Amino acid sequence: MASTDLPSTHRAAVRQSSGVTATTSVVNVDTPKVGPGQILVKITWTGVCGSDKSLLRDEWSVFGVGMKPETNGIAGHEGAGVVVAVGESASGRWSVGDRAGIKWIASVCGECEFCLNGVDEVHCVKQLNSGFSSPGTFQEYCLTDARYASKLPEGVLDEEAGPIMCGGVTAYEQFISDPDRSDVKAGQWLVILGAGGGIGHFAIQYAKAMGIRVIAVDGGDDKRDLCFKLGAEKFIDFKTSSNISAEIASITQYGAHGVIVCAATKAAYETAPTYLRPAGTLVTIGLPKDASTLAGAPPIMVALKRLKIVGSVVGSLKEVEEALDFTARGLVKPMLSKGKLEDVDEWIAKLDAGGVVGRAVLRVGS
Amino acid sequence: MASTDLPSTHRAAVRQSSGVTATTSVVNVDTPKVGPGQILVKITWTGVCGSDKSLLRDEWSVFGVGMKPETNGIAGHEGAGVVVAVGESASGRWSVGDRAGIKWIASVCGECEFCLNGVDEVHCVKQLNSGFSSPGTFQEYCLTDARYASKLPEGVLDEEAGPIMCGGVTAYEQFISDPDRSDVKAGQWLVILGAGGGIGHFAIQYAKAMGIRVIAVDGGDDKRDLCFKLGAEKFIDFKTSSNISAEIASITQYGAHGVIVCAATKAAYETAPTYLRPAGTLVTIGLPKDASTLAGAPPIMVALKRLKIVGSVVGSLKEVEEALDFTARGLVKPMLSKGKLEDVDEWIAKLDAGGVVGRAVLRVGS
Amino acid sequence: MASTDLPSTHRAAVRQSSGVTATTSVVNVDTPKVGPGQILVKITWTGVCGSDKSLLRDEWSVFGVGMKPETNGIAGHEGAGVVVAVGESASGRWSVGDRAGIKWIASVCGECEFCLNGVDEVHCVKQLNSGFSSPGTFQEYCLTDARYASKLPEGVLDEEAGPIMCGGVTAYEQFISDPDRSDVKAGQWLVILGAGGGIGHFAIQYAKAMGIRVIAVDGGDDKRDLCFKLGAEKFIDFKTSSNISAEIASITQYGAHGVIVCAATKAAYETAPTYLRPAGTLVTIGLPKDASTLAGAPPIMVALKRLKIVGSVVGSLKEVEEALDFTARGLVKPMLSKGKLEDVDEWIAKLDAGGVVGRAVLRVGS
Amino acid sequence: MASTDLPSTHRAAVRQSSGVTATTSVVNVDTPKVGPGQILVKITWTGVCGSDKSLLRDEWSVFGVGMKPETNGIAGHEGAGVVVAVGESASGRWSVGDRAGIKWIASVCGECEFCLNGVDEVHCVKQLNSGFSSPGTFQEYCLTDARYASKLPEGVLDEEAGPIMCGGVTAYEQFISDPDRSDVKAGQWLVILGAGGGIGHFAIQYAKAMGIRVIAVDGGDDKRDLCFKLGAEKFIDFKTSSNISAEIASITQYGAHGVIVCAATKAAYETAPTYLRPAGTLVTIGLPKDASTLAGAPPIMVALKRLKIVGSVVGSLKEVEEALDFTARGLVKPMLSKGKLEDVDEWIAKLDAGGVVGRAVLRVGS
Repeated sequence: MASTDLPSTHRAAVRQSSGVTATTSVVNVDTPKVGPGQILVKITWTGVCGSDKSLLRDEWSVFGVGMKPETNGIAGHEGAGVVVAVGESASGRWSVGDRAGIKWIASVCGECEFCLNGVDEVHCVKQLNSGFSSPGTFQEYCLTDARYASKLPEGVLDEEAGPIMCGGVTAYEQFISDPDRSDVKAGQWLVILGAGGGIGHFAIQYAKAMGIRVIAVDGGDDKRDLCFKLGAEKFIDFKTSSNISAEIASITQYGAHGVIVCAATKAAYETAPTYLRPAGTLVTIGLPKDASTLAGAPPIMVALKRLKIVGSVVGSLKEVEEALDFTARGLVKPMLSKGKLEDVDEWIAKLDAGGVVGRAVLRVGS
Repeated sequence: MASTDLPSTHRAAVRQSSGVTATTSVVNVDTPKVGPGQILVKITWTGVCGSDKSLLRDEWSVFGVGMKPETNGIAGHEGAGVVVAVGESASGRWSVGDRAGIKWIASVCGECEFCLNGVDEVHCVKQLNSGFSSPGTFQEYCLTDARYASKLPEGVLDEEAGPIMCGGVTAYEQFISDPDRSDVKAGQWLVILGAGGGIGHFAIQYAKAMGIRVIAVDGGDDKRDLCFKLGAEKFIDFKTSSNISAEIASITQYGAHGVIVCAATKAAYETAPTYLRPAGTLVTIGLPKDASTLAGAPPIMVALKRLKIVGSVVGSLKEVEEALDFTARGLVKPMLSKGKLEDVDEWIAKLDAGGVVGRAVLRVGS
Repeated sequence: MASTDLPSTHRAAVRQSSGVTATTSVVNVDTPKVGPGQILVKITWTGVCGSDKSLLRDEWSVFGVGMKPETNGIAGHEGAGVVVAVGESASGRWSVGDRAGIKWIASVCGECEFCLNGVDEVHCVKQLNSGFSSPGTFQEYCLTDARYASKLPEGVLDEEAGPIMCGGVTAYEQFISDPDRSDVKAGQWLVILGAGGGIGHFAIQYAKAMGIRVIAVDGGDDKRDLCFKLGAEKFIDFKTSSNISAEIASITQYGAHGVIVCAATKAAYETAPTYLRPAGTLVTIGLPKDASTLAGAPPIMVALKRLKIVGSVVGSLKEVEEALDFTARGLVKPMLSKGKLEDVDEWIAKLDAGGVVGRAVLRVGS
Repeated sequence: MASTDLPSTHRAAVRQSSGVTATTSVVNVDTPKVGPGQILVKITWTGVCGSDKSLLRDEWSVFGVGMKPETNGIAGHEGAGVVVAVGESASGRWSVGDRAGIKWIASVCGECEFCLNGVDEVHCVKQLNSGFSSPGTFQEYCLTDARYASKLPEGVLDEEAGPIMCGGVTAYEQFISDPDRSDVKAGQWLVILGAGGGIGHFAIQYAKAMGIRVIAVDGGDDKRDLCFKLGAEKFIDFKTSSNISAEIASITQYGAHGVIVCAATKAAYETAPTYLRPAGTLVTIGLPKDASTLAGAPPIMVALKRLKIVGSVVGSLKEVEEALDFTARGLVKPMLSKGKLEDVDEWIAKLDAGGVVGRAVLRVGS
């Protein structure tokens, strides 16, 4: 059950070295054959996540986290395209020609304690991760687990799907899927640090879709315009504000009910707890490379204010499906800056400089 | 409605100066008259909390937290005794001769947003705190709000009541009253850092009372014996263990479901997150004076493991009542080291040196 | 602290007899004086709730529920107006001239187990209820507890406030305030039986405000138009549908995530459980007079589908404040049919016949 | 990978007709071969559940629920034994000689909406059920899905495993695994109707294991003795009590926090809601054959008291594992009445008469 005309090689953006100065080159690599339980997906678009930058540049080596050899140097975990080959025992779920999405979690075992307790499959101890422990979506043809690839609904474009399956579902999980996690309800105030970026712009929209009031924090007029367009009720420009904390207090009286840190900076994590009211929640999303930055606060503040600090990392297969549905229904619109695979290094440099509005996506194949 | 023989003055342990070297002296102070909505309690016993030490010694000045002038230099927030005078409009709830408890929260307004949303009265913006913003229980006669003082049930001794209303209810709230907060269920593993101390020994017992399995961490054989006696299933001696983390992993396979930090040390907060399994919870209770200590972890750890870090500070009036009931029913037994008010400085020095087994309580009046 | 020109008597709609044929007459009654902790409110508008009808007509006598003598025969629990006198010790919260709302719960004791556990003050064992155990809002001047009367925000009209404080907050509590109660999340399907009525039309709007997808069920084109205007995504006309259950299954695949029964009919309660998917929730709001109607289902259905059936009755003081805020922010718009106090019997007859679109409100004073 | 000496036929208790008078005969049936993903289990013991009785006797035909032809007339869903053959692709999880449990849910698809949302796999739309839609455990050799059969831990005997995997996990799920479902916390009161029976005696023990206080209701001194032995704090004999409701009110002041109905009778469901305090929860477990019995209450009671009524049906694969662990740790002890497969009709008659103390288990093979 495969297209008859699969090539023997295809283009891939392959990391050429390691360390902070690593670059990629688009070269030809062997096109793999599907095995049992697998599908081969011809990628049309892939998103570029902050994590791709951090992995390609070895920014997290201090935490012992880096791209594994099994990736063959191919990053990327926000891919979408069309199924071109279906392995044995995978035909119940997939047919050649179906649209499919490939995401950070490429497969889970379905048998470990975390898979079986349902809510925690994202912690599967045997999971494979695209662009981290298996070849990613920065290539034309990507092999993946048939059970864990995502169906793409009508109403979601290929270029939109990748970012929704990563930054989108991360925001979705915190507010809508598991409302007890962020504990921010309709009508309450949420501060989003880095609101105009790849994850932040999703957070605004999912929060708004469930009635949460958003205070967007970011820098510059482009970000301001974007945040208001997406539904933020207030915007604070960190480049010009003399006192963000006071502005938030003035809007919210006792502080915000929640703060979500999408920015990957020390400053964001140091100030975030001070924006919270008693019993408020800080959601950890941005991942700084600086090992001295903690998501946390002095115990006396955490205890006396009974703060809650939670982490968030993508979502389950089912949550991805639900997050996609919000776009299919027109409620969440990914904002995209478009490029092509060959220019991945330039886009990563742009991302590093904070110069990408919304999420960067790269054209991979036709 | 008052006893006829109230004295005009009474003994109180009054702070004589400020700063880290502050000492107290037991002197005579004026005995106050009850006003409307107040009761006057003749204190028999008062507990000595780590917070009393920190307040008397100005250890939290770096956080802007210190004893207020309204205390008249009298600390203490774990008091129990008998009602000797009942103010106007308070007689519906109290009669002379009733046993009453005075705790950290001395009164709440009942009208602010936090009082009205029920679960958060501990964040009342107008609350008074014994020994912090009103004269505390280190004295023979203590005036307090009739609505917020606690009834003491049969089966709870005066010397036991104070510690239950502070460290006891703090542990109670996290596990039993609000099980979604710690998210540790019956049959799951909880690590308690500082398990043999004033709060830790309560945490063991409330956790056990609801079926949680406890790994107690503390130092020395006395603490070991106490922890096992109170229901811990495992004990790790931090003074002799070569690798606490490995021991915990060996017991729990993927790490503990929760860690509660009762120790007020930097080391405890730095290591606590590493003891957790994915989706585990860290509960913040111990309050170090060191401003560089955070309850938290690197964002990459908080996010990828989806950790939760929560703070805990005493409990509501209702939760105190419930926590007391566990002692009345024989399930939670405060372990007490007994002294007398005159020796408060010695007890605080002993507390500072980690030399108190269980909770210190001081005899105040007969 | 009172307006100087308070009358000695005022107009009130007083029940003239008891039983199903009871009628009311507008007569003059004595205007009460404020006592300590009370305020006197000059009522401008009062809503007419289905419960007013049931109480005035003794429909719930089979359940032992009926208007108590303390009401002096004056029903009504959805009143709004202006404070004209403030009793002793109530001046901290109220001034003459403030706008105030009087609702079903007129006062709570603040001391019983249910008041103290925060979330359950609606179950206060000593509560007073307007128009049930104390004189209600079907009169020009109404005395009430200063602590429990509601402040009315700008942006909410007097005629809107009453219905929001009753039917509005009942819907608000189930979806927004306590999302774990209905367990229906943004993006999921909610069926509302009686969607175009006094409570149903609020349920549509609060559900929509938090992103829930609504299937409205009611009869007739007026109701259809109203439901779509308020945000329902689907409408099923029970007068013309040949198979409501099949229509719901067709929209939702496995059944709805929740069903809220606003209609007070046996048919509604019998069919509601069949509209649910496994693990779905039925919310009980409409109160039939028929004693043989149960909110429930055969145990084999409840167990095998793990259904949840919950009841809902108004909300706390804080929840009322929050529900009002949604109207102040323009998100929830009470739909009103307006009349005047003198015609209360006609409006109750109209309500009985299902002929009121939205909520009926009566002009009481100027 | 199979034992070499598998027989070609084996003994099975096969239903001989249908309807309320159906009987079974132990006859020889063909022993099946394992297919891919399957294991063959040699059953040593099987429990006899009330559902087996209802299915064998067609008691639920009024609900359209009956044994399907695919069972070959073989009931039973509480089986334990040893693996004697392992099919292709199942060897990662099972080896010949492993101890295995077969339960109500024999397999789930792992792909439908309910499987994927984790918590709801018990609602898998393609699930197979032992003794209902596939041959059950009333036979010597039973074929089952390798992924969904349960590993049996040391410390759990074969005869204990079956009942734990059915009645045990049903109780476990409501109190420990999902504490928000029953909402009964440590220290609160739970009434168990039918406390001395097959499910009730588990409910006592799991409730006690997490600190819940139990009021057991059942009939006769044997049941009384058993309930006290297992940890009930109070016992009410429905055969001799003149007023159960008054006794419960006297113990609990405002009514119980929860009532769990294990008895499959109309009387139990009619009275259960009256035992609850405001905001209390009724848990539906017993399944009466009478179609006129509802798990529910008049809407006016459900609404005004904000009751919650929930259903419970076994648990997930992971929950079964956790429930077994409580027995392995010595906290939950199944009480068994032992017989042999040949006498299944007698045991079913005994069950029907309420004459079984604890759970009946039948010896199947050696």
